[in-house]
Amino acid sequence: MKPMATKTSPLSERETRSRLLNAAGEVFAEKGFKAATVREICQRAGANVAAINYHFGDKQKLYADVLRLSHTCAMERHPSDQGLSDRSTPEERLRAFIHSFVHRVFDDGQPAWQGKLMSREMVEPTRALDYLIRHEIGPRRDQLNQTLRQIVGRGASEKLLRHCTQSIVGQCAFYHHARPMIERLYPQQKFDAGGVRERAESIYQFTLAALRGLAAERGGKS
Amino acid sequence: MKPMATKTSPLSERETRSRLLNAAGEVFAEKGFKAATVREICQRAGANVAAINYHFGDKQKLYADVLRLSHTCAMERHPSDQGLSDRSTPEERLRAFIHSFVHRVFDDGQPAWQGKLMSREMVEPTRALDYLIRHEIGPRRDQLNQTLRQIVGRGASEKLLRHCTQSIVGQCAFYHHARPMIERLYPQQKFDAGGVRERAESIYQFTLAALRGLAAERGGKS
Repeated sequence: MKPMATKTSPLSERETRSRLLNAAGEVFAEKGFKAATVREICQRAGANVAAINYHFGDKQKLYADVLRLSHTCAMERHPSDQGLSDRSTPEERLRAFIHSFVHRVFDDGQPAWQGKLMSREMVEPTRALDYLIRHEIGPRRDQLNQTLRQIVGRGASEKLLRHCTQSIVGQCAFYHHARPMIERLYPQQKFDAGGVRERAESIYQFTLAALRGLAAERGGKS
Repeated sequence: MKPMATKTSPLSERETRSRLLNAAGEVFAEKGFKAATVREICQRAGANVAAINYHFGDKQKLYADVLRLSHTCAMERHPSDQGLSDRSTPEERLRAFIHSFVHRVFDDGQPAWQGKLMSREMVEPTRALDYLIRHEIGPRRDQLNQTLRQIVGRGASEKLLRHCTQSIVGQCAFYHHARPMIERLYPQQKFDAGGVRERAESIYQFTLAALRGLAAERGGKS
């Protein structure tokens, strides 16, 4: 938490905006979009209610901005094209996708509300998710799809690729929802930096073996 | 909801117990273990507070019974050994495990609180989960482990099998947490009876290809 502004140092517009976004993220994550009030967000940010209208328009638009910010931060901390170049192979792209996803899921460095907010959206989506799907998640799904097509073979059906995509994302997202349960089931498995890297690598190896096997069943690339 | 008992038809002990379990399930799922009160549960069940002590001992034991009931109901509706016999192959066992898991996750027929309660336990486990892990989830994990060992080969390391188990469960559990999100990402994919079966089968095919690929990398069964 940033310190409250004192009367002798009025907040700049940019500071106010940033504090409103953070306070809103906390309140939305705790209470959900409907139950959260603009009033509580402003109190927590040390700003007056008019600031919401001035900076964001209304509660709905504030929420959309908060969700976008949360997504952008996570992506910037662990970009899915890290270490890739134009000459990277599809296998390298798949590996980068999985490693960045798993590291995002285990990222304890981000404010806790960012993960919580995204969990809420997955269970009870709001209209704000549509924007993310159209502009962020959808394009990444399409990119992964294209990578998989290169590995499984050009003749692979859209349905097969869709199922493979879900199998990959399911393996990675598991730790987002069930980590406390997994830690109890596998107390010997540590999820420190090395453990997270090892888990990401094993998801990649499992997935690559699956894709190559499915490609071979289809009679190889065509 | 069952109708409230009238004064002319006192509830039998068995009925009271069953109504308390159901009311407790609803309240625990909505509010979590800590925030739920015995008073509210009894009100909802139309029973007096002494009935909790009489039937369960205390709130902690009531909670443990509710969680166990929820797990047992789900397992009985979709047993993981359905259609198997002593002569079933490891591949058939794996397939049965995955199909039953996926069908449990998509089961809309169970009371809604059962799924919610289990979600809560995965995110914020209570002591009651330890019992389930020791007596139910742990043994099933070990059984899956044994099946995988037969497919990947006897020399497979414990670590490899542990990672494979998590990859399998992650693929299945995905729909427990992220179904509304997935439905938005893949509007063309229907999760009716046929769609659920298709998804389960594709997880099995993906997994089998992965396991066989990993076995081949290890130089085949040994």
